[in-house]
Amino acid sequence: MAETNEYDLVVIGGGPAGYAGAIRAGQLGKKVACVEMERPGGTCLNWGCIPSKALLKSAELYQKMLHAADFGLSTESVGFDFEKIVSRSRNVADQMANGIEFLFKKNKVDYFRGTGHINVPGMVEIKDGLDKGKFLKTKNTLLATGCKMRPFPGLKLDGERVMTSREALVQKKQPDSVLIIGAGAIGVEFAYFYNALGTDVTLVEVLDQVLPVEDEEVAKLLGRSFKKQGVSVHLGTKVDNVKTTKGGVTADLVKGDKVTPIKVDAVLSAIGVIPNLEGAFSSKIKLDQDRGYLTVNDRYATNVAGIYAAGDIIGPPWLAHVATYEAIQAVNGMFGAGEPKRVGLFPGCTYCLPQVASIGKTEQAIKESGVPYKIGKFPFAASGKAVASNASEGFVKVISAETDGEILGVHIIGADATELIAEYALAMELEATPHEIHETIHAHPTLSEALMEAAAATENQAIHI
Amino acid sequence: MAETNEYDLVVIGGGPAGYAGAIRAGQLGKKVACVEMERPGGTCLNWGCIPSKALLKSAELYQKMLHAADFGLSTESVGFDFEKIVSRSRNVADQMANGIEFLFKKNKVDYFRGTGHINVPGMVEIKDGLDKGKFLKTKNTLLATGCKMRPFPGLKLDGERVMTSREALVQKKQPDSVLIIGAGAIGVEFAYFYNALGTDVTLVEVLDQVLPVEDEEVAKLLGRSFKKQGVSVHLGTKVDNVKTTKGGVTADLVKGDKVTPIKVDAVLSAIGVIPNLEGAFSSKIKLDQDRGYLTVNDRYATNVAGIYAAGDIIGPPWLAHVATYEAIQAVNGMFGAGEPKRVGLFPGCTYCLPQVASIGKTEQAIKESGVPYKIGKFPFAASGKAVASNASEGFVKVISAETDGEILGVHIIGADATELIAEYALAMELEATPHEIHETIHAHPTLSEALMEAAAATENQAIHI
Repeated sequence: MAETNEYDLVVIGGGPAGYAGAIRAGQLGKKVACVEMERPGGTCLNWGCIPSKALLKSAELYQKMLHAADFGLSTESVGFDFEKIVSRSRNVADQMANGIEFLFKKNKVDYFRGTGHINVPGMVEIKDGLDKGKFLKTKNTLLATGCKMRPFPGLKLDGERVMTSREALVQKKQPDSVLIIGAGAIGVEFAYFYNALGTDVTLVEVLDQVLPVEDEEVAKLLGRSFKKQGVSVHLGTKVDNVKTTKGGVTADLVKGDKVTPIKVDAVLSAIGVIPNLEGAFSSKIKLDQDRGYLTVNDRYATNVAGIYAAGDIIGPPWLAHVATYEAIQAVNGMFGAGEPKRVGLFPGCTYCLPQVASIGKTEQAIKESGVPYKIGKFPFAASGKAVASNASEGFVKVISAETDGEILGVHIIGADATELIAEYALAMELEATPHEIHETIHAHPTLSEALMEAAAATENQAIHI
Repeated sequence: MAETNEYDLVVIGGGPAGYAGAIRAGQLGKKVACVEMERPGGTCLNWGCIPSKALLKSAELYQKMLHAADFGLSTESVGFDFEKIVSRSRNVADQMANGIEFLFKKNKVDYFRGTGHINVPGMVEIKDGLDKGKFLKTKNTLLATGCKMRPFPGLKLDGERVMTSREALVQKKQPDSVLIIGAGAIGVEFAYFYNALGTDVTLVEVLDQVLPVEDEEVAKLLGRSFKKQGVSVHLGTKVDNVKTTKGGVTADLVKGDKVTPIKVDAVLSAIGVIPNLEGAFSSKIKLDQDRGYLTVNDRYATNVAGIYAAGDIIGPPWLAHVATYEAIQAVNGMFGAGEPKRVGLFPGCTYCLPQVASIGKTEQAIKESGVPYKIGKFPFAASGKAVASNASEGFVKVISAETDGEILGVHIIGADATELIAEYALAMELEATPHEIHETIHAHPTLSEALMEAAAATENQAIHI
């Protein structure tokens, strides 16, 4: 009977939402397929988080080697091979993508190569790709098609002079100079990467701070640090008149009335993302949308029965870990494996040096909300481990409610910030107070002591400041 | 009146217990003095945790530079200056010790240089040192004299051929070969350090695993990793007949009936610590002791009114962070600033590579206790961040009670283990379940995701394995 070929779930998109949702369905013993037009892993694994972290690790080590004498070490002719740095990062992405294919097999996820298209609810057609022309009958469909880079108006990507992060991740030749448009996480990470390797970097942000979503105090310190590192940072500045020429790219930096022409080797546009729904479903299927993103209810269901959506395609914060969480929750809910939860708290991380990580609200947002608050701050300069590691830049800032001690926001800038934030993610999830963190014994000497000391500082009980 | 010169608290010992207790009393507005025979910071800051971490950072970076090509980097003539590595670590210790002196001033702690001696309860005499001959009248006394290295029977320290960690931290010349007796945290860290810099290391442990207090599975992996790194590891082996000669040190490694003679440049004894109470109080004061350690009640009070004790001097686990916690609790209790708590949970860390960190019980201890348990394990090889960082050795192992999900023990071996353990310290303090950790969104890509995946694995819901 046709029944035997019917899937319990077909997932369209194999990124952090899609592959995780598919694997979760497999764990639940469901008959599941994942349709992906490139290879599993999505933007994150193939064109984002993972390969960019590999690039950053090379840049970090290069910088450390240049300063090896600080550690009593010596070396000569420190150098790098740009192509090798890039190809190492591709190898890392390859390895992880193969890992997902292995997990698909292990969890009995049927993996189809091509563009998934919902013809009618319950029927997914594969267009293009290796499995073109196949039709998958399914009880449920999960749309997890994610986002793609927002094009810069008037700019044509050529992968050499004009790039988004995607092209930058596979470029062959290091540019001598680069204009990065947008100082969000991606722009800032590439600014660190290029600058660390000696490219002349101009980082331009239309808003008044780097990392506009982060706490102002953190952003200011990062901006200062970047300037000290040699990045030319332009805030409150627009980029206009971008033109590619034979020898490079010209543009105008516009700040108020002031126009500064600039000429660079290459331009990297990092001005955000847009939803990626093209061809995902028939025009006869009317899915509710909001500014191009799919609208879902608390069970991640769209307005059309049997069609769910999770990840970037349902809107911000466009983070892989949030996407994964949503897809797992959606699948759990679909198959009665637990009441699905919508995302409340999530950490945000930027992997430049110093690293930036945060969870909850910024001080500015808390101030605006009118809630009386206390701040506990601890500088890494007072941390023995940070000093022993030559990494004493930055601080931990904990903001708690004056009344009941509820933790409202935590902001970290400094070495290992992206790992350290995890403790506060759990703390906030469990509604712990700074007092409870202060009373938890943290290993000495670690950077994590700074988490405890910042909590203690909200009670004026930090020992080391 | 004499009253005005009376202290609320005199602390004897300026280590992690002593200085923290003194600062806490200062925060509470108490008149407090700290008597220290060397300089503030104690063994930890001056002769232990802090300078050793500085040495390890140099060794780590040296190893990374030797493998720079893995990251697309190139270099020639990678080398080091042993004296500079050591002097850097001394500078770090100096800086932190100066920091404590600053904190004493800020918190109005009177700092006396010399050996504190309780003549009668309520009166501390300073013997030796700059402040020799002074008498401090006090309502309360906190003994925080810590521990010192256990001498190896028959071995005379000379700081060159025969060392404990203390001497090793200031040695001028790198030994070509070293015999390290004892594979606890200190022995293992120095084994990593010397081996990383090219010294021929023989690491000998009388018990059957390296890091005898750690989970067997972790210790086994570390032992294998050390062997791969080139350390000669001898378990279940005693060291006998240690003799210094003109050209070095000879000794016998005794395993059962087998005796292997060995000749090395230097020997480092790391066989634990013994209580350090010599001269701390008059023989007329009868303080209850247990195997040389002071016995205290739940308020850290000894059997003599007004005399308290905290830190290593009240017995294991001999960890700086535990000592600090105890002293703060003792002082809070003394002055009515909260009901003091005795130490329950505490993390333990070893800073070799791969790093080791744990909290709670080992699997062996849990098995012996008869409590039915579940294990969730996640290998760093499946972590995108670990792979991107060339640091995929190791795993996270979470052990929870079969019945109610109580987390019984967490064991981490791998990059950044010593920072990662903090989240589970908080989790266990708050009695969180693995399910709650699994449901907490962890940032991608971070090593901390492995903490979540291991928790999920206890429920058979890890995505990436």
